[in-house]
Amino acid sequence: MVKIVMDCLGGDHSPDANVEGSLRAMDLFPDLYILFTGDETALTGLLKASGADVKYAGRYEIVHAPGVITGEDKPTDAIRLKKDASMIRAIRILREDPSVSAMVSAGATGALVAAATLRIGRIRGIRRPAFCPVLPTMNGGIVGICDTGANVDITPEYLQQYAVMGSMYLQKVYGIRDPRVALLNIGTESEKGDDLRKQAYLLLKETPGINFVGNMESRDLLSGKYDLVVCDGFAGNVLVKTTEGTSLELLKRLRKDMMSDLRSKIGALFLKHTIMKEVQFMNYQNYGGSVLLGCEKTVVKGHGSSRPEAICKCIEQAYRMETGRLNEELTAAVRALYGEE
Amino acid sequence: MVKIVMDCLGGDHSPDANVEGSLRAMDLFPDLYILFTGDETALTGLLKASGADVKYAGRYEIVHAPGVITGEDKPTDAIRLKKDASMIRAIRILREDPSVSAMVSAGATGALVAAATLRIGRIRGIRRPAFCPVLPTMNGGIVGICDTGANVDITPEYLQQYAVMGSMYLQKVYGIRDPRVALLNIGTESEKGDDLRKQAYLLLKETPGINFVGNMESRDLLSGKYDLVVCDGFAGNVLVKTTEGTSLELLKRLRKDMMSDLRSKIGALFLKHTIMKEVQFMNYQNYGGSVLLGCEKTVVKGHGSSRPEAICKCIEQAYRMETGRLNEELTAAVRALYGEE
Repeated sequence: MVKIVMDCLGGDHSPDANVEGSLRAMDLFPDLYILFTGDETALTGLLKASGADVKYAGRYEIVHAPGVITGEDKPTDAIRLKKDASMIRAIRILREDPSVSAMVSAGATGALVAAATLRIGRIRGIRRPAFCPVLPTMNGGIVGICDTGANVDITPEYLQQYAVMGSMYLQKVYGIRDPRVALLNIGTESEKGDDLRKQAYLLLKETPGINFVGNMESRDLLSGKYDLVVCDGFAGNVLVKTTEGTSLELLKRLRKDMMSDLRSKIGALFLKHTIMKEVQFMNYQNYGGSVLLGCEKTVVKGHGSSRPEAICKCIEQAYRMETGRLNEELTAAVRALYGEE
Repeated sequence: MVKIVMDCLGGDHSPDANVEGSLRAMDLFPDLYILFTGDETALTGLLKASGADVKYAGRYEIVHAPGVITGEDKPTDAIRLKKDASMIRAIRILREDPSVSAMVSAGATGALVAAATLRIGRIRGIRRPAFCPVLPTMNGGIVGICDTGANVDITPEYLQQYAVMGSMYLQKVYGIRDPRVALLNIGTESEKGDDLRKQAYLLLKETPGINFVGNMESRDLLSGKYDLVVCDGFAGNVLVKTTEGTSLELLKRLRKDMMSDLRSKIGALFLKHTIMKEVQFMNYQNYGGSVLLGCEKTVVKGHGSSRPEAICKCIEQAYRMETGRLNEELTAAVRALYGEE
């Protein structure tokens, strides 16, 4: 049995999307057990309304924790003061219950990172946990980006660890053999960028067990030439959100243009399936959340705007990390990198 | 008369695109005079072949400087050792000839920044020149981004200066009144980001003469809610290149999909004008180059892949900066910011 805890508050479509997504995941994985944290009355009502109380009886439980943490809350204050918040309660369960192996949340990012780092703890040897979402590439594959915002002040060593953790994650969860790792930089030549990038380049080149292929310019993110991009959390955040923003704005524009005159409307009728394919392609709801790599237990952060399909994907990621024993292998890999500490 | 120097080597389509773009600009601006640096034989041939030797007689001259600087050259070495390079010669002319007010180049970025900073000099009080390209927004406007790669190691004060210079540039060259300035960050709340961003936020809030509206997340770059985004050169580079890369990849994908079956092909016929509109919209060739703000004389960097229309736009930017007396006003604004030094 894989037991996970689902933080049901904090997302734009919480708790409904969280519950519905969870039920879909329970359909997919018969050995999945879920603890829901949130407002007990609301959750009971939702589960009853969907018939889950009968269909999934014995496969879930509800933990009453009605407080919500928002982006306005200072992360450390939130952890200390909002003990009844669904996120903080979920973290506590993850820490204290050895049978619970993973957590999914679509709540405030800063609080989640802080709570995971302070309360769950890091894999021995890992300096900082880091986010690693994946995006679709133009040739039908995916590309992972580590980190996208967990750490804004970093060292070359962090980037090395992101490369090791991300490579293993892509192998375990997405079946990518020998992932091609690139360093995000402002040019492809080896001596580009600031001191951090220059040092990281040299370090990555010498790191055993990863397939470092050099610097990458951000315009090549979706090209399919790379499997994993490592970067500081600020640049990674810009990288992912710009990709998302540009895609959404362009598709919006295109759809508007297609309704602008009769001729376009006729064309749009013929092309509806093509456009829908693109919309689905760029819809981040289909690619799940950002896993937080490097924690002792699995934490997956869903997009704030996650709908049921995205929540379901997040759970799938957590499930595959668990069944793939990712954390055990990460622990071994970090030990190999640094020797016994 | 506005006299500018055009570096005719170093771009992907140099020197042909540089010459053709220059001739278009001479059509647009009857008081424009151009000095071409590059290989004399090649340039003479190109100008003769297009009939420019007759049509624009007395409005240009050729300076023989056949060396090329590439991205592989170390910037400081390039300046020191490649004195016969078209870019270095152009910089020298810009420095030494008081009648020449601006320079356009599509050559290596690093060398151009170094040469401009070391040889041309900064406006008194300006810490570092910075790039400020513009991109189209979804509501038909533009957004400027400063900086996109001139400086990767920066201070809050640099960001303040980018805000002052960029605001004035958008007013003078694009006629935007009271530009809305945003700080690129990983969240919109005031306390987001690293120390640099937090300090910059406070500094920008107190800076007179600019319209600071707060933090911006990269996904909102094209939304039309902001006129100018200030950021460090690394993040700015990621921001712009990701936008460009995502747009190009998406449009490529869309065009491929439209040819995938008969039904799509029919739809594409009806929608050809709409698609072309999008392609034109996202074509950075239409938006000119990155001006380097803060130098004593105007330097405009064209995209390495600039075609004639992009080169022409770069010249137009340089021309408008000159006729708008941007540098004089910048000098006054910097003096006002810091008092007499």
